[in-house]
Amino acid sequence: MSDFLKKINSPKDVQSLGYSQLNKLAEEIRRLIIDTVAKNGGHLAPSLGVVELTLGLYKAFHTPPDKILWDVGHQSYAHKIITGRREEFCTLRQFGGLSGFLCPKESKYDFFKTGHSSTSISAALGMAVARDLNGEKHKIVTVIGDGALTGGMAFEALNNAGHLKKDLIVVLNDNEMSIAQNVGALSGYLARLRTDPMYTRGKEELEQLMRKIPVGTALLRLGLRLRDSLKYLVVPGMIFEEMGFIYLGPVDGHDIKKIASVLQRAKNIKGPVLVHVLTKKGKGYQPAEKNPGRFHGVGPFDQASGKVYKGSNIPSYTDIFGRTMIRLAQKHENIVAITAAMTGGTGLTNFARLYPRRFFDVGIAEQHGVTMAAGLAAGGYRPVVAIYSTFLQRAYDQILHDVCLQKLPVTFAIDRAGIVGQDGPTHHGLFDFSYLRPLPNMVIMAPKDENELQHMLATATRHPGPVALRYPRGTGVGSVLDEKFMRIPIGQAEVLKKGSNVALLAIGNTVRPALEAAVALKDRGISAAVINARFVKPLDEECILYYAKRTGVLFTLEEHVLQGGFGSAVLELLSARGLRNIRVHRFGIPDVFVEHGSPAELREKYGLTVRHIIRTVANKMAHIKRAKRLKNIKGFDTKTC
Amino acid sequence: MSDFLKKINSPKDVQSLGYSQLNKLAEEIRRLIIDTVAKNGGHLAPSLGVVELTLGLYKAFHTPPDKILWDVGHQSYAHKIITGRREEFCTLRQFGGLSGFLCPKESKYDFFKTGHSSTSISAALGMAVARDLNGEKHKIVTVIGDGALTGGMAFEALNNAGHLKKDLIVVLNDNEMSIAQNVGALSGYLARLRTDPMYTRGKEELEQLMRKIPVGTALLRLGLRLRDSLKYLVVPGMIFEEMGFIYLGPVDGHDIKKIASVLQRAKNIKGPVLVHVLTKKGKGYQPAEKNPGRFHGVGPFDQASGKVYKGSNIPSYTDIFGRTMIRLAQKHENIVAITAAMTGGTGLTNFARLYPRRFFDVGIAEQHGVTMAAGLAAGGYRPVVAIYSTFLQRAYDQILHDVCLQKLPVTFAIDRAGIVGQDGPTHHGLFDFSYLRPLPNMVIMAPKDENELQHMLATATRHPGPVALRYPRGTGVGSVLDEKFMRIPIGQAEVLKKGSNVALLAIGNTVRPALEAAVALKDRGISAAVINARFVKPLDEECILYYAKRTGVLFTLEEHVLQGGFGSAVLELLSARGLRNIRVHRFGIPDVFVEHGSPAELREKYGLTVRHIIRTVANKMAHIKRAKRLKNIKGFDTKTC
Repeated sequence: MSDFLKKINSPKDVQSLGYSQLNKLAEEIRRLIIDTVAKNGGHLAPSLGVVELTLGLYKAFHTPPDKILWDVGHQSYAHKIITGRREEFCTLRQFGGLSGFLCPKESKYDFFKTGHSSTSISAALGMAVARDLNGEKHKIVTVIGDGALTGGMAFEALNNAGHLKKDLIVVLNDNEMSIAQNVGALSGYLARLRTDPMYTRGKEELEQLMRKIPVGTALLRLGLRLRDSLKYLVVPGMIFEEMGFIYLGPVDGHDIKKIASVLQRAKNIKGPVLVHVLTKKGKGYQPAEKNPGRFHGVGPFDQASGKVYKGSNIPSYTDIFGRTMIRLAQKHENIVAITAAMTGGTGLTNFARLYPRRFFDVGIAEQHGVTMAAGLAAGGYRPVVAIYSTFLQRAYDQILHDVCLQKLPVTFAIDRAGIVGQDGPTHHGLFDFSYLRPLPNMVIMAPKDENELQHMLATATRHPGPVALRYPRGTGVGSVLDEKFMRIPIGQAEVLKKGSNVALLAIGNTVRPALEAAVALKDRGISAAVINARFVKPLDEECILYYAKRTGVLFTLEEHVLQGGFGSAVLELLSARGLRNIRVHRFGIPDVFVEHGSPAELREKYGLTVRHIIRTVANKMAHIKRAKRLKNIKGFDTKTC
Repeated sequence: MSDFLKKINSPKDVQSLGYSQLNKLAEEIRRLIIDTVAKNGGHLAPSLGVVELTLGLYKAFHTPPDKILWDVGHQSYAHKIITGRREEFCTLRQFGGLSGFLCPKESKYDFFKTGHSSTSISAALGMAVARDLNGEKHKIVTVIGDGALTGGMAFEALNNAGHLKKDLIVVLNDNEMSIAQNVGALSGYLARLRTDPMYTRGKEELEQLMRKIPVGTALLRLGLRLRDSLKYLVVPGMIFEEMGFIYLGPVDGHDIKKIASVLQRAKNIKGPVLVHVLTKKGKGYQPAEKNPGRFHGVGPFDQASGKVYKGSNIPSYTDIFGRTMIRLAQKHENIVAITAAMTGGTGLTNFARLYPRRFFDVGIAEQHGVTMAAGLAAGGYRPVVAIYSTFLQRAYDQILHDVCLQKLPVTFAIDRAGIVGQDGPTHHGLFDFSYLRPLPNMVIMAPKDENELQHMLATATRHPGPVALRYPRGTGVGSVLDEKFMRIPIGQAEVLKKGSNVALLAIGNTVRPALEAAVALKDRGISAAVINARFVKPLDEECILYYAKRTGVLFTLEEHVLQGGFGSAVLELLSARGLRNIRVHRFGIPDVFVEHGSPAELREKYGLTVRHIIRTVANKMAHIKRAKRLKNIKGFDTKTC
């Protein structure tokens, strides 16, 4: 570790450094970030973009008592490094190590848990209100990207903050990107601000000009409007001014001195201030500067070449989704695709290239995206809305109110469902079955492998109503892809293995482990049927009831929370049909938020591996056998076994 | 019925009338709306405000093929009356009658189902994209209120529409209100536009002024900025212009000719247009003009006096919530309240008056409101977020990600939970148990009566984590209110009646009917225990398991969908504890969207009345008895009874 960095144990240590020292410190931080992310993977480009901004913030503010919040938190690596986590930084995103986002449990400098976009202005406003009610005086600053600003709740927060007039500094980290290139009218507006002559020339010339405008009595009634207009001439950020903010900037986000100076100005202004900072995503690492999308969130890579290590040659579920979309679009002219700022992440890059008129990136705007899909469906189209499970939570009301209530044929392609791994609790997709299952008209499916994914997508896009199609992050199982799409009858499960002692009812990516377990259980003398449920709604009632009666012992398996999920649907079915006396054990995630770690580590911890399934089933069966024997011998009450 | 109205059977008939005839027609429509709502109740003030706007729209556009959408739909009465529903209008909001909102099943002129706010620009944009892909040429218009415009998804839609540049006309119906007075910086902006000199003077003077501004070579680089600035001088709606819209207006929303004329202009403009129309909520009915909040959604009233008929002297759950909030706020300085444009509806009017610094109306912005509450909680406060069950769906991700993940002590006061009645499927609060139950750290309670509501609220606001407190619309049961607040141990049910044959496990407003049913069942020789579950999460496991073992027959009761609700939680518990052989019957709402009608009619239809409970329990018990007898006699297999 180099010279300055090793002396930085808290933000206080930053304040004592001069600007040339801070510039050197920035380089050292950047180096540590690149070294670490090259090994562990992580959000490289966002974090590299704000190294100077971070130092400028800690130069200008004293935290605590001041509070600095980071929207999303994927740009917080420099913040982590200088707030006492330098030594642990090597554990970034590893099981038991540092979180890749902000985490109040991890540090007193992390004031709010983050992971999803566009929340920080709301949280900061709440804290500002609390501060004022307490009669405290500290400053509250939040850093939000131009991408996150397109999320509706950020606008709701600006609107409310401008109204409440609390002291609050919003730093707009404008890198012209969300994860991909930004879209939307607002980004055009920000681009105009970027190229504003004020930024390069200073204001003198304009002020001269203003003085030449005649202001006579005839114009008195126009005074207010005129003043606003002149302000518009000088102040570029008029939208923000109209929303009740004082706009400062734009300022070069890689010049620590300038940043600290504009923040110093912001500190002395009463009421809400927006500081517009221009940064470059990936700054200081050539491959990331060139391809900030690829290096937004990235796996381990070779530093010299910038080549990301390829984990597997097996295509991911996401890849297969993307390919299938293209094949379906060729066949059916009414298929269109919608993404919320995740073109690459959802596998739609090629679709977008081939079918630009039928592809819509709506920005970080899941709510709008879903209702726009409803509008497209009402207009005769078959929209496929590709949104990660965790982000679809943002559009819950729209799914219910705008899609299901009208039974519109919208397909939800729910990527990253289940355990996602290193991104942790804010990103696992563990709630979708539960929040979608109560919605009338909704069909919910999950494929056992990537071949079934393509058939399910083909099926979903022909179904005359809403379909949620849920599939996991990462590589598939390497299954052979059928040439021809198959229509899967809605609500039909698939019996993969017959069996007479127990039935394993599995959904999605638990089907394969269930099958492996069943094979091993055979060696232990347990005949286990394996059912690929395929549908969580509607259930294949006939199939499930048959195996319930046949075996009397059901195991349900899902990579999803246990409350209200697939297993609960099975319990509801058994109860509704009056089937008592069936033993049901449900594999799934218990009632906790799942931490970060590799998917393998997390599946091990939460009992979703083949080994666990074998052991649990074998134990239960041994227990049942013993209980039955006892009953036969002594007439024991076995009701509660 | 008077002269013009009876000839209006479709929008075509409007087009043939001249403006003086249209003005008379407006009066007739207004009369019919007032007469009907005085009898049936309904959204009076919003619908009265847009009578002329509606006629102006149907004068300017030909629908179909043109499409006119209405955000929320509570202002659509004039639209309903002139689109062939004049005769049925007397059935408004009655069971089996016309919906109070838009409903595609009801009319071909209702292009999109509505009820929740801020969705229409998204839906319209989807339809505009579909139109263009189809190569069609019709116009798409959406009418959205200034209140609805503060919802984040409306901003997301504007941002996307300005980017896509589709032909789309957004009519901003600016009445300076959402349901209550509008809040937020945007409303200040709109107010400035209202008082703009352009509106009263015309543009000549300004254009003269603009010509006087010297434009020389030195200023060439400033050209673009300068042009924008001058535009700002002339065009009042610069925020909308920056978002990619052409702004027209403001125009008097009660002058049909002016409206039709500005809409005609809008029709001929390529790309998205925003037409700013100024209307008066409640226009034409004095009491509603004076008190548009009271007459937003109103029960039957006396036309002459404007007095709303009082249904009952028993205070509503909402009233008791409001009173309790004041008592708690007196006691605990850290209690603050948040509402999303529903101060009156959630019973917080007096709280807002008494504690203005501790009360926050964030506008129609549920997402922001919840995360702001999280910020307040992180700052040491105890926020109570009062949002109707159906609207809380908008903030699902924020509840999960910003509150539960950090286990912040935010209380969700979920009013209008269960069947809400005449507002129908878009407004029933039937999903909250299911969508909240999977969230770790969440406590979910529902009181049996208004006395328990106050104790639960006192308990919730002292609990060190998130609490969802769910209570129904309308009057309580008239229970006596204890003077002193009681802390209810988290997860503790209440045994209201002991019994040995069956146990009725009830939650919320099903407890009372369960108790009444139990009394009646006694006469039929059935000894029914009645448990007031109080908590859906955590369940009182001990109590439920005790009665499960004791009686072997459980009935769960909830005014909520059956998928994933309270009854499912009970099934999960029994399964997890290995209790088989327990008969469970779940009362609740089946897997359909519930229509509109009076709560009594709907409870009758969905089997949630005392009569239904008695009959179902008695039948089940008779069935069980018979099955047992058969088993004893013949050794019958009763597993599936």
